[in-house]
Amino acid sequence: MTRQPVHIDYPDWVRETIAWDTVYRTDEERMRLAIALSSENVERETGGPFGAAIFESDTGRLVAVGTNSVVRLNNCTLHGEMVAFMMAQARLQSFTLKGSQLPAHELVTSCEPCAMCLGATLWSGVRRVSYAATREDAARLHFDEGPVFPASYHYLEERGITIVRDFLRDEAVAVLERYRAKSGTIYNG
Amino acid sequence: MTRQPVHIDYPDWVRETIAWDTVYRTDEERMRLAIALSSENVERETGGPFGAAIFESDTGRLVAVGTNSVVRLNNCTLHGEMVAFMMAQARLQSFTLKGSQLPAHELVTSCEPCAMCLGATLWSGVRRVSYAATREDAARLHFDEGPVFPASYHYLEERGITIVRDFLRDEAVAVLERYRAKSGTIYNG
Repeated sequence: MTRQPVHIDYPDWVRETIAWDTVYRTDEERMRLAIALSSENVERETGGPFGAAIFESDTGRLVAVGTNSVVRLNNCTLHGEMVAFMMAQARLQSFTLKGSQLPAHELVTSCEPCAMCLGATLWSGVRRVSYAATREDAARLHFDEGPVFPASYHYLEERGITIVRDFLRDEAVAVLERYRAKSGTIYNG
Repeated sequence: MTRQPVHIDYPDWVRETIAWDTVYRTDEERMRLAIALSSENVERETGGPFGAAIFESDTGRLVAVGTNSVVRLNNCTLHGEMVAFMMAQARLQSFTLKGSQLPAHELVTSCEPCAMCLGATLWSGVRRVSYAATREDAARLHFDEGPVFPASYHYLEERGITIVRDFLRDEAVAVLERYRAKSGTIYNG
């Protein structure tokens, strides 16, 4: 019996539309990219209403992006954050974004990370996480975020990861509402 | 700038050595496969001391396996359980292992799942999880399991997932100790 390897790639529009060489100086610019990814993913019907990006914190250089790809690629692990981590590490050829030879990296995501993505955040080596929409916003669409508790965030913060909450939340919520209006698939309800 | 897709595949020895067509009738047979995968991964130096497998619960049919591949593939998300979920879903061409057309599936893993893998367990669609070595056993090697609490397990159990703990623990701990003796990489210490 043959087994095929798993291939994970962006939808075509990501390569065509992302401004890879732009410097994203501010938190607003960084989060607006993550939200734009979530919105494009909805409009082009390539996945759930979630987008994420990894930046070098100091320079604002864009390292990788991620869009929710669960349904498109038949893979429950491919939340936007997970795709961003994988692509960033593939680009750096490193299983961690933290190291004496590496600048500090951060995750910017359009919605609060689920339990899986929050765990992966710890392993990824990012030093900072910013999210826009909240767990409660996602739950209104019947997306489950899994076992995440206040103690989960404390666990990350104790290990030096800064959490920025509810940043440009309304803009991300508008994308969730757009997905609901289009009756998008709720793949883990 | 080009971006390469991410490719996830087994180490060569997995295809060569796993008895894909064997029926794994008992819990012992299933866990011994997961532990054998963890052990081979150590001996062949293809990753951390962790192995996992997905079975059809009733028939004992082996659907997919996973070995820790974090260092080998430069990808922090590739714990044994995650590889097993991805490979099982690729095989079934489904983003969930739960559905009216699908038999019940279960995850068998040589060590207690970390926060990321426990979250993914919920999204994977498996109905049952069995593990051998514990979080404390992994911590003795300075592997961190992340923010997992008793409430995390309750969250899964409330959603119909059965948890079987410490099953053949000593056999899995022996593999962890072998990894320590070989001074294997601790990639998330």
